[in-house]
Amino acid sequence: MSKLFEDLDEGETFESGTHTVTKSEIVSFAEQFDPQPFHVDEAAAEDSMFGGLVASGLHTLSLATRLTVDDCLSEIANMGGSGMDELRWYTPVRPGDTLTVRAEILEKTPSDSHPDRGYVDFKRRVYNDDGDEVMSVISHNIVRRRAADEDS
Amino acid sequence: MSKLFEDLDEGETFESGTHTVTKSEIVSFAEQFDPQPFHVDEAAAEDSMFGGLVASGLHTLSLATRLTVDDCLSEIANMGGSGMDELRWYTPVRPGDTLTVRAEILEKTPSDSHPDRGYVDFKRRVYNDDGDEVMSVISHNIVRRRAADEDS
Repeated sequence: MSKLFEDLDEGETFESGTHTVTKSEIVSFAEQFDPQPFHVDEAAAEDSMFGGLVASGLHTLSLATRLTVDDCLSEIANMGGSGMDELRWYTPVRPGDTLTVRAEILEKTPSDSHPDRGYVDFKRRVYNDDGDEVMSVISHNIVRRRAADEDS
Repeated sequence: MSKLFEDLDEGETFESGTHTVTKSEIVSFAEQFDPQPFHVDEAAAEDSMFGGLVASGLHTLSLATRLTVDDCLSEIANMGGSGMDELRWYTPVRPGDTLTVRAEILEKTPSDSHPDRGYVDFKRRVYNDDGDEVMSVISHNIVRRRAADEDS
């Protein structure tokens, strides 16, 4: 049974499983969505400020989202999302890095106009296997609220 | 020849080409990165607040990034990105929608600590073929600056 808006607490945290990023995944994602030289071309990446091939920041965000869906949102009656803020990439993600996500509920607010839903803000922090924070982001989610005539 | 930091103007705009989103792309992206029912399962999507299958917001962001790389960043000496702010999804993206991106330079700031680069903020707005704005986001980019001893 999925957690509804009322079942969630500000400060509640979720820990994800892990995903190890391969070079072919990095290149394949970037060829499709972000074909900049430092994401798709090893020689060009050596000459870039990264000094080697790095994952597109969008790829890191996408991998983090998959980890979040599997180990956090799958437990929650999530109806959708309205946006994100303060997305920051701190440390490049390189082939062989193993990523994990820690999600925390920052704030929850019932909707005034829609009694069936509430807004839940999550802060997600992504770490590599050295314990470096590689990315963080605040996501604005929409979560189903218990109907007034429903048992709690 | 790529445009350097000095060659860019605040208020300058770029128009991308178009991309038409297919149902199989929507499902395939979501199965990999955002396997929520309303992105991967047509029957579940009918019962969701979207009333049908919709693209993951991450997929829309990824497609918009590809359009931006092809028709804007490819002309610029972009060294990387540090983050994004104010990512908002306004209108669901559905199979058959044709997307286009308008990017505008909001602000440029030379780096104090790195004389070889400057920070350029882009506002990107994504439209469907009905002219609805489906998404917008502010991206923080790092762009190569002309060396002091280089011809302008």
